[in-house]
Amino acid sequence: MPFGISIDVPSGTILLDAIRKVHLPLKTTCGAKGTCGDCVVQVLSGGYKIKASGVLPEQLIKQGHTLACQTEIRDHLTIQLPEFQELSVRSVSDSQFFEKNKNNLSGLYEIDPLVKKITMQVPLPTLEDNYSDLRRIEREIQKTHSIKSLHCEYSVLKKLAQVVREEDGKVTIILHRSGQDWSIIDVKKAKEARKIYGLACDIGTTTVVIYLVDLESGKILSSASSYNQQIKCGEDIIARINYAQKHGHLQELHDLIVMTINNLIDKVSQSAKKPTQDIYIASISGNTTMIHLFLNLDPRYIREEPYVPTFNQVPMILSRDLGLKMNHEARVYCGPAVGSYVGSDITAGLLCTPILRDAKRISLFIDAGTNGELVMGNKDWLMTCACSAGPAFEGSGIKCGMPATDGAIEQLKIDASGEMDFKVINGGKPKGLCGSGLIDILAELFTQGYIDRLGNFVTERAHPRLTEDEYGLGFLIEKGHRCYWGRDLVITEKDISNLIRTKGAVFSACSLLLKNAGLSFDEIDAFYIAGGFGQHFNIENSIRIGLLPDLDRNKFHYIGNSSLIGAYLILLSEKNQELVKEISKKMTYIELNTVPSYMNEYTGALFLPHTEMKLFPSVKKIFSS
Amino acid sequence: MPFGISIDVPSGTILLDAIRKVHLPLKTTCGAKGTCGDCVVQVLSGGYKIKASGVLPEQLIKQGHTLACQTEIRDHLTIQLPEFQELSVRSVSDSQFFEKNKNNLSGLYEIDPLVKKITMQVPLPTLEDNYSDLRRIEREIQKTHSIKSLHCEYSVLKKLAQVVREEDGKVTIILHRSGQDWSIIDVKKAKEARKIYGLACDIGTTTVVIYLVDLESGKILSSASSYNQQIKCGEDIIARINYAQKHGHLQELHDLIVMTINNLIDKVSQSAKKPTQDIYIASISGNTTMIHLFLNLDPRYIREEPYVPTFNQVPMILSRDLGLKMNHEARVYCGPAVGSYVGSDITAGLLCTPILRDAKRISLFIDAGTNGELVMGNKDWLMTCACSAGPAFEGSGIKCGMPATDGAIEQLKIDASGEMDFKVINGGKPKGLCGSGLIDILAELFTQGYIDRLGNFVTERAHPRLTEDEYGLGFLIEKGHRCYWGRDLVITEKDISNLIRTKGAVFSACSLLLKNAGLSFDEIDAFYIAGGFGQHFNIENSIRIGLLPDLDRNKFHYIGNSSLIGAYLILLSEKNQELVKEISKKMTYIELNTVPSYMNEYTGALFLPHTEMKLFPSVKKIFSS
Repeated sequence: MPFGISIDVPSGTILLDAIRKVHLPLKTTCGAKGTCGDCVVQVLSGGYKIKASGVLPEQLIKQGHTLACQTEIRDHLTIQLPEFQELSVRSVSDSQFFEKNKNNLSGLYEIDPLVKKITMQVPLPTLEDNYSDLRRIEREIQKTHSIKSLHCEYSVLKKLAQVVREEDGKVTIILHRSGQDWSIIDVKKAKEARKIYGLACDIGTTTVVIYLVDLESGKILSSASSYNQQIKCGEDIIARINYAQKHGHLQELHDLIVMTINNLIDKVSQSAKKPTQDIYIASISGNTTMIHLFLNLDPRYIREEPYVPTFNQVPMILSRDLGLKMNHEARVYCGPAVGSYVGSDITAGLLCTPILRDAKRISLFIDAGTNGELVMGNKDWLMTCACSAGPAFEGSGIKCGMPATDGAIEQLKIDASGEMDFKVINGGKPKGLCGSGLIDILAELFTQGYIDRLGNFVTERAHPRLTEDEYGLGFLIEKGHRCYWGRDLVITEKDISNLIRTKGAVFSACSLLLKNAGLSFDEIDAFYIAGGFGQHFNIENSIRIGLLPDLDRNKFHYIGNSSLIGAYLILLSEKNQELVKEISKKMTYIELNTVPSYMNEYTGALFLPHTEMKLFPSVKKIFSS
Repeated sequence: MPFGISIDVPSGTILLDAIRKVHLPLKTTCGAKGTCGDCVVQVLSGGYKIKASGVLPEQLIKQGHTLACQTEIRDHLTIQLPEFQELSVRSVSDSQFFEKNKNNLSGLYEIDPLVKKITMQVPLPTLEDNYSDLRRIEREIQKTHSIKSLHCEYSVLKKLAQVVREEDGKVTIILHRSGQDWSIIDVKKAKEARKIYGLACDIGTTTVVIYLVDLESGKILSSASSYNQQIKCGEDIIARINYAQKHGHLQELHDLIVMTINNLIDKVSQSAKKPTQDIYIASISGNTTMIHLFLNLDPRYIREEPYVPTFNQVPMILSRDLGLKMNHEARVYCGPAVGSYVGSDITAGLLCTPILRDAKRISLFIDAGTNGELVMGNKDWLMTCACSAGPAFEGSGIKCGMPATDGAIEQLKIDASGEMDFKVINGGKPKGLCGSGLIDILAELFTQGYIDRLGNFVTERAHPRLTEDEYGLGFLIEKGHRCYWGRDLVITEKDISNLIRTKGAVFSACSLLLKNAGLSFDEIDAFYIAGGFGQHFNIENSIRIGLLPDLDRNKFHYIGNSSLIGAYLILLSEKNQELVKEISKKMTYIELNTVPSYMNEYTGALFLPHTEMKLFPSVKKIFSS
């Protein structure tokens, strides 16, 4: 679990070996000696024998946790990889966060979704008024709604005559709109009709987040998030596209994302106690590759020059064609993309900024996910580009990294004496660091002189907390006995280098985009930063490490998961859907791979904060003081 | 066969008993004594023992024909009920007939169907022209077509990227239009693209006829017809509606009509050597009950006051939702109905008349199928009504009746001495009489004095040819040894009475419709008669028996299967589809059941030609001369 993969092995096999046979990712730092505690898994059922429990706390062992490298399989065993456990519902905070920022989004919060419910009294037929059932319903709708044409889905036709007569003509119909053309997608006895719901979903390369929304009030009823189960097929977009090329693999990737979303649908519908058949519409955003895989479309040409997707404006698709757990007639909308590397996560995300309503000020929007995307411009023009940032700030590929969920350190300070002070999401012992925590530790290590501008440890300075194992040097954040998993929380030199590459990719993409437009950082009036860093994203520290440029701090606004909130706004109203289509058409895509100075820019950004210190006067000042 | 029904019986069982156990219709006149020869069936495979072969010709016995009442089952037996054999392709003559009448239909024969094929060169993407595949295709289409919005079916999206690149951008796309909104429903490599086809289909209560049409030239490539396999569940609409009320029966009726149509699709596609996946659209007409059953919709409220169907304007339905053997994305259009008893067979049929283009002259359109429907009016107004005529003129429920197909007597004369002269469709020994033959024999028997005005035999006059068995009196048309089945061809008094009831129902409905509009027969300028009577429908004889009113013969026009030809015209062009929608909206439906004088009118029409002889001056003249 959670992948549902089975393997037959002889009794006595070491669990870690069995897991590796099916190519599931499970890190070990100590070389399977039972000392690092990295390979912890949870046994859900079955017989096993623990050879050694290493650093694992007693309480976790009681809950079935064990070190895979120290466990012999005795009987049919079901295990859960904790790394890929479903994420705790952090995303509700996103919605609270969104509520706080709603004033910025004036006008977008109108509730006028594409699916509507109408309860009406259809006059029963008489010999004088013997119009067909469908015509009589149409007539009633037209009394209150301006409808050009009314279509009726075949599945509805089949039950129409019956339902209309069951409660003396009192019915509730569910209508779907496409411009002025409407379709009846469901009909119910009025007294059996319940509320109708929609889904907003962000399909990230690493994580998937979903909202269940009441389509009448617009209220977010529940939310859930989990890892994208495709992770086992590759961490980034390129790896997934490569994986899809083998026979049957495209289908597998499609099935994995549908399974991920269906699990989340189960979760949100159970937690809000709403039946899935009352969900009639979904608004999905994600990068172009994720949307191709979600729709079971070969993403091959996305990575082959000239990098062209099958479509940008995805047509409406029926949920049943995708296998989603929603009403049989539910509609699925994927937001419009701009190109192969700027997807609907970005166009939807832009809805969460005032960029589109401001003709004078120039803004820069940065979405730093597994892929980094940037958009610059205002109401009148928009330029965009993408860079391969990597999933480091989402906690992936970092020894102590994790998403912004329960147990993650989201804020961290180190004082001059090396004392740590940190804040754990929802309290308790820390499990790891999320994006905002990683930015903090990088900035603190640098500011306090524990690492140099290249990210290497200054050994004499870092000495008391310096650790070393076969994977190299590390810096102790918290001792094992104070940590959830019982093992030491350490950030390694490799991790730091990984984080620097990521921030370097984002920053150099920013620089290039500006240069392309003949602008300097000074000329940007506002920066909107989106991503899964965590709520306590620290602007000051982001500047210190050179992720963001050194400008007036008031120019920066962290807006969280804007892709998800954008999908939610699109779900709320047709106007927003139209707006995001307009956005996508306005955007000019710049292909960074073809810009000759790209490698220079990138290499220059692989320093803390940058090879050119003069670009970061406030950081320079700290060090010269 | 042809129903595919199986039953287990002990070896030695009489075949007729086995057939009756599964409630299949098989008439016997002699009480299973082996003398009437009615219960002939054809053994396709298996072991059986013939006790007696009665009148059955040797040649037919060699072909496996046998009398079910005289046959013992010995082994697994597959038999074919000849009554329900597929009809020979008589309908091609309908299309020839139509060609002859094409001048009447000027303007309707434009070819502009809802599904079109476009072959184009899509420019391959470059870094400069890196629009998505779908966008580049859209751009090419827009160069030559005025398209408001272009949708792309999900099944097409899945293969789009691949197909576009396989032949350097040369592709053929299949487009479906709905107003100005187009959908791509298929895409192929240009060199693999074939022609595209459509179906026109008339679903009659008794027979189903289909055309396979080349959508580019409009040419009818092949045609086929068969009995509606629902016949075994009831002969007329009311019987079918009643049958549908039991659990699972609606589904059975739906499956039977889909099976009937799929068999015909196989037939036309095989005979024209075209693959069924190249069929992208179907235009269907039929009475409202048939269309409800075809769509698997409960027809119950059609027969319950106030007689209201689920819909009149049927929305477009996907062939895959119905299970039809066509392309996966094929579209099915059912013409618009006016009400429960005036269906799309009538609205489509009106396309075959000039009624809609003439504002001055008043025309009457009569479709005498299993149900009889009438329409009266002109360009500006239309009134319509229906009556339950029964399938007698389609050859059903008449001992010697059969559809207008190979072996049917379609023309017949009796001279004063009682000598018969008849014409058999496609020559050879006669099998029975089709509608036009039945009208002829009724008129001839009456004119020559063999029957009286009530349809009873004048025994002394009819004597030489008079027959009698346990079912009553009959009139010998042809001796058994000169008939295909070896049995005597006889029309019984019961048959005559049945035919009189049918013609009476049609005529009295005509009278009532006229009275309702305050018009007399004289004021009607033209009569259009549609139905499956056969090509040699005799107007003079139809007047003599009182099926048609006694007016100037030049006013009458027999137009054959207008429902099928109407469906074909709708298939050919969107304009015709729009026209027929307009027609349906203009029509005022008169419910005859609620007109108090209905029974009087009907009873008066149960005479030859009518109780009021003065209504038929030309017939009166014959008898008084």
